[in-house]
Amino acid sequence: MVDFTRENLVRFTKRIQEADSELEVAARAHLDNLTKPLGSLGRLEDLAVKMFVASGGCAPQADPARIYTIAGDHGVNAENVSFFPQEVTRQMVENFLAGGAGINVLAQTAGVDLVVVDAGCIGGDFPEHPQLIQRRIGCGTGNIAKGPAMNEEDCLRAVFMGIGLADEAYEQGIKTLGTGEMGVSNTTPSTALYCAYFGLDPADITGPGGGIDAAGVIRKTGVVRSALQANSEAVGGGDPLSILAALGGYEIAALAGLILGGAANRQIVCIDGFISTAAYAAASLICPAVGGYCVLSHASAEPGYAKVVEALGRRPLLHLGLRLGEGSGAALSVFMLRAAANIYNQMATFSDAGVASSC
Amino acid sequence: MVDFTRENLVRFTKRIQEADSELEVAARAHLDNLTKPLGSLGRLEDLAVKMFVASGGCAPQADPARIYTIAGDHGVNAENVSFFPQEVTRQMVENFLAGGAGINVLAQTAGVDLVVVDAGCIGGDFPEHPQLIQRRIGCGTGNIAKGPAMNEEDCLRAVFMGIGLADEAYEQGIKTLGTGEMGVSNTTPSTALYCAYFGLDPADITGPGGGIDAAGVIRKTGVVRSALQANSEAVGGGDPLSILAALGGYEIAALAGLILGGAANRQIVCIDGFISTAAYAAASLICPAVGGYCVLSHASAEPGYAKVVEALGRRPLLHLGLRLGEGSGAALSVFMLRAAANIYNQMATFSDAGVASSC
Repeated sequence: MVDFTRENLVRFTKRIQEADSELEVAARAHLDNLTKPLGSLGRLEDLAVKMFVASGGCAPQADPARIYTIAGDHGVNAENVSFFPQEVTRQMVENFLAGGAGINVLAQTAGVDLVVVDAGCIGGDFPEHPQLIQRRIGCGTGNIAKGPAMNEEDCLRAVFMGIGLADEAYEQGIKTLGTGEMGVSNTTPSTALYCAYFGLDPADITGPGGGIDAAGVIRKTGVVRSALQANSEAVGGGDPLSILAALGGYEIAALAGLILGGAANRQIVCIDGFISTAAYAAASLICPAVGGYCVLSHASAEPGYAKVVEALGRRPLLHLGLRLGEGSGAALSVFMLRAAANIYNQMATFSDAGVASSC
Repeated sequence: MVDFTRENLVRFTKRIQEADSELEVAARAHLDNLTKPLGSLGRLEDLAVKMFVASGGCAPQADPARIYTIAGDHGVNAENVSFFPQEVTRQMVENFLAGGAGINVLAQTAGVDLVVVDAGCIGGDFPEHPQLIQRRIGCGTGNIAKGPAMNEEDCLRAVFMGIGLADEAYEQGIKTLGTGEMGVSNTTPSTALYCAYFGLDPADITGPGGGIDAAGVIRKTGVVRSALQANSEAVGGGDPLSILAALGGYEIAALAGLILGGAANRQIVCIDGFISTAAYAAASLICPAVGGYCVLSHASAEPGYAKVVEALGRRPLLHLGLRLGEGSGAALSVFMLRAAANIYNQMATFSDAGVASSC
């Protein structure tokens, strides 16, 4: 068992390898020899290349895939920033375990395994359930409008917990990870993280989250400003881990760890929506090489998301107007990875099929 | 057997029912009661509503689904408008039947049945194959740069052939149809159809198709202009069927029929890319009510496509930079329909799950 220290995290991230551009050339050459006009499968080809490079040159393989939907509560909920009451975090975890939520349906449709993780919901332990992992860091975070969400040790515990999930999945043969989350009010810490990481203005990216009205968005914008002010030392210092501790959440920190761990294992990580992308932002600032292993599954309908992906310099895969979270978009994107892998592995070449490759 | 007359086509289209807006209200009410923020599954919810309304109020059901990939050759190929030689149409049909093409892989990945149809390839009959339907209207169309692609009777034969495919699928229990096509040079007649139907300028929407270079695009633009000129009587007359005969192709007319037939049967029809959308344009001008049954699967990477969907007033579902055709995007979109249907049918309601629906 490693100690949950900053030094050990830095040491861990050195395991994450930069993408090898020679492998990309080889993957493109293979795709260009298949019976289709050059590049005509667009982003499916990009995904296949990414999988080939991420794996270090193995045939792309999306399956088996698993989504970790990680739940946690947020002290900032006291600031009246959510459409739903705080107990909904817990109720939704129970809904996940009963199979009735959106992520249950979409994971099953996509043929993706779903594991639910309690990283720190209010209300204590859940009854045991085969789909539930209980690794509670605390019982709800601190209120970021007044002070830090977590101390650095708890944040590191959450990050290493996520790394551990990726490692367990890897040992079980999982090729693709998906990030999912549940946490009433968690668009607020996510928005604060984006502002701190990218210098964005709260007024430009604060949105309705689960469904608050226009007056609520104005109130929430003020809460994000208060959070940046109350944590000005961490924000001003610019250290991504300190900012994650100050403004994040247990599930967000654990997802950052899942992303770092997946990248270290050469797994592809499908990043879900607005909150998961905040975890991706943290992970990619801690270790930029994670980008070679991550797919932004979809463009969240949360209005600030466009500015966020611009700041990240990334392009989401699907544009379906989703704003559910839970891992919903990640589940759908696994289907696209599977399609990409099958294209790479199963299509005939021009010469095999006896098809002329040009005039 | 009906006669292939314009009158019988008009009579047929009267079977296609307008979408019932009361059913849409009922479907939205059902979705709003499921355990998720209102509208948070975005376009999946729109798809579920569309399926519910199209079926006349039945639980949405995407499966079983079938793609018809219809092949035909084009006389305009003589004008040097394609990157691939004409024999590639036939070679690709053989590739489809051998299972090595993009559509084979994507249909299989998506769990969609694939049927290949020869509507008029050059080179005569194919050997029999269980996945092949041979309903040849002719042996390549006329060169649209010099005159009409088809006479009206052949065009009607192709349209009724497509209607027959939809009816056969319906009798076999198929709930979702996908359009696919193969025909070297068929972006040229498709571009000409868009110009004729929507008053678009050839210079604004002519693109590289299978991969011609910039000089080729300029040449192709001139060929489209010649086609509009050589068929100015049909174009000026504004009748969608006459324009389809003058500028279309066997596979495009058959796909228009498949769309009309699917709509009459209350099947959902997933429209593939640039060429399939030309068939959709024809079908929707012949009978606007088909719109209630059709999903534009994806935004083709063919540069003119954005102007085309603007003219159609529709929004494509996926944005993956595909420009393969064959039904590739239609296959991927069936997965999204399945996800949407499962959301509608399988998610828990707030009261069933014991989840609070607001603060």
